[in-house]
Amino acid sequence: MATAVAGKGLEGIVAANSGICWIDGETGVLSYRGIDIHELAERSTFEETTFLLWNGFLPNRNALRGFESQLAMARQLNPRVIDLMRSFPTTATPMEVLRTTVSALSFYDADEKDNSHDANVRKAYRLTSQIAMIVAIYDRIRKGKEIVPPDLSLSHGGNFLWMLNGEKPSETATRTLDIALILHADHELNASTFAARVIAATLSDIHSAITGAIGALKGPLHGGANEAVMRLLLAIDKAGADPVEYVKEMLAAKQKISGFGHRVYKTEDPRATHLRRMSEQLGKDAGQPKWFEMSRAIELYVNKEKKLNANVDFYSASTYTTLGIDIDLFTPIFAVSRIAGWSAHVIEQLDDNRLIRPRADYIGPAYPSRYVPIEERP
Amino acid sequence: MATAVAGKGLEGIVAANSGICWIDGETGVLSYRGIDIHELAERSTFEETTFLLWNGFLPNRNALRGFESQLAMARQLNPRVIDLMRSFPTTATPMEVLRTTVSALSFYDADEKDNSHDANVRKAYRLTSQIAMIVAIYDRIRKGKEIVPPDLSLSHGGNFLWMLNGEKPSETATRTLDIALILHADHELNASTFAARVIAATLSDIHSAITGAIGALKGPLHGGANEAVMRLLLAIDKAGADPVEYVKEMLAAKQKISGFGHRVYKTEDPRATHLRRMSEQLGKDAGQPKWFEMSRAIELYVNKEKKLNANVDFYSASTYTTLGIDIDLFTPIFAVSRIAGWSAHVIEQLDDNRLIRPRADYIGPAYPSRYVPIEERP
Repeated sequence: MATAVAGKGLEGIVAANSGICWIDGETGVLSYRGIDIHELAERSTFEETTFLLWNGFLPNRNALRGFESQLAMARQLNPRVIDLMRSFPTTATPMEVLRTTVSALSFYDADEKDNSHDANVRKAYRLTSQIAMIVAIYDRIRKGKEIVPPDLSLSHGGNFLWMLNGEKPSETATRTLDIALILHADHELNASTFAARVIAATLSDIHSAITGAIGALKGPLHGGANEAVMRLLLAIDKAGADPVEYVKEMLAAKQKISGFGHRVYKTEDPRATHLRRMSEQLGKDAGQPKWFEMSRAIELYVNKEKKLNANVDFYSASTYTTLGIDIDLFTPIFAVSRIAGWSAHVIEQLDDNRLIRPRADYIGPAYPSRYVPIEERP
Repeated sequence: MATAVAGKGLEGIVAANSGICWIDGETGVLSYRGIDIHELAERSTFEETTFLLWNGFLPNRNALRGFESQLAMARQLNPRVIDLMRSFPTTATPMEVLRTTVSALSFYDADEKDNSHDANVRKAYRLTSQIAMIVAIYDRIRKGKEIVPPDLSLSHGGNFLWMLNGEKPSETATRTLDIALILHADHELNASTFAARVIAATLSDIHSAITGAIGALKGPLHGGANEAVMRLLLAIDKAGADPVEYVKEMLAAKQKISGFGHRVYKTEDPRATHLRRMSEQLGKDAGQPKWFEMSRAIELYVNKEKKLNANVDFYSASTYTTLGIDIDLFTPIFAVSRIAGWSAHVIEQLDDNRLIRPRADYIGPAYPSRYVPIEERP
């Protein structure tokens, strides 16, 4: 029997034990395996952070080299997966394509029928490398450009930019993306990670769990918010409007401003701190400070009027745009990073599994209602 | 801040209000919109039950006719979706194919960008009809058989059997399948439905939610259990073993017997009652009573020894096998039915939405752990 009624949306309900990510929403702390996100953003790499998330400790030089090379070696897609992507209509959005193609990866995965810890780690390497490749390759395909073969000498983020643009990325671009990937790599039981754990807990496979997570990330209340932020900035720019006046009108019309507020943080989202700094610096360097300036004006106004803080999505919009990345790749890039955390959570779930099966509070017609024969129905 | 620690797997936690399905696990009651499952199994059809799940009341004759015709009209797949299925390796399992193809349906759905209530109802018609078609068509493709075009004059279940076998199904087969579809159509916040709601609650699209649900259903602790039951029966048959002795040895070796026990029911699963009866009758009619007899012997033994009751999966195995259905289609057929409930739950979730985002209890390294520079790491 149901014994406890949770707040709507399971707010405040502890749904799992986890040793991966600790957040203190009151003081604005985010940490992976006990290490503060600020330290990782300043000093780590995406590869090292992924090792940390998967293994629980930082790798020494040998272990890191081995991990980086495993990830790089996984930069290969079955040619039939590329044919599959070519068969999709070019109107398909990158998130639909990512969801569908990741689901299809299981057809060609040698470990598909093996749900052991070790097999899932092997699949996690492949998924991590291949999600980045799928996002880059589909963008080339839909634009009628040639596919760029992976460069195994580049870092995970560097190779993604290379395969996306067909040019060796600058050091600044690579480092900026790398920091963004570190910041997005995990966030405890966010909706997509929770979806992945619910799916994995039926003892289904990791491809099912990650496919479901991608579907959840797509939503505008989750990963989709960074795209909505950029669409707002573009609309303001196009209208030649004052950003504060524009947002003021939106708030007066009870419209939601994407990129603000967070279920968990009651103070500044620690990830926003880094993205704000990068957005400002990149804008300056590129001689294109307007997206940052517009964002900053909106942030100050919304903060003052609504007491809402910018979250991870707010400054990632202007950061990615200044890096020259298309809007509809923002959420896919979130997936390029979050696969690190999704994998860690799926493997942790399976290491000590129980089916996740809550109850509902029934509010429908009283039981027993009569099965009225069809000739008597009004 | 997290305020309540739930039992593992969210056992006993109320995660949503819902007017769709009421279960009393203590007394073995299952009802849709207040109507007992026994009444529906005996007197309703899958189409009428789906109308009930979606609308909350039983249709009159006109409404039912309109609903049936809407569902029948949705029996069409974009030819590119069929090409897509043809491009898959024939080693791909039906559940992987269903997950991937349903994800790809969104490419061609005219309402893909519309997440309104009405658009989701339109998409639910299409998904309901097309999931059945995908399962049947892929089975023909992998067996090198010609695809059978849908017959709009047949019922949902009848058309499925027609497209699967290329022969007009008998009345008994159609009615048996129809009852199985009614029994599987909804079950409150089971893992796949809960996954669908978690995904939908990010305001992602219904295709994402259903794709995730299919991934969850695939797991052997959920829909995959009916396939495991049949594999056990086949293994016993092949070994020429006594079913009770075989199961006794499995239990002694601490192996799990699929098809027994349920998180919610503490007494007989009311769905098992009907499936047991159908399994027995079909076996008699076909002059092939062995699967039923074997199942019954196992049921009595497990019930006596472990105090576990047969669940919905236990007798669906022998029922489907006697209908001539391949083992790896059992779980897909579960999806052919459960899409009715998944759709109802996704639409209900979106009608009064809140992001589903629980918390975790952190059990990892203490915060703050030092970011040890790489040269100092052991």
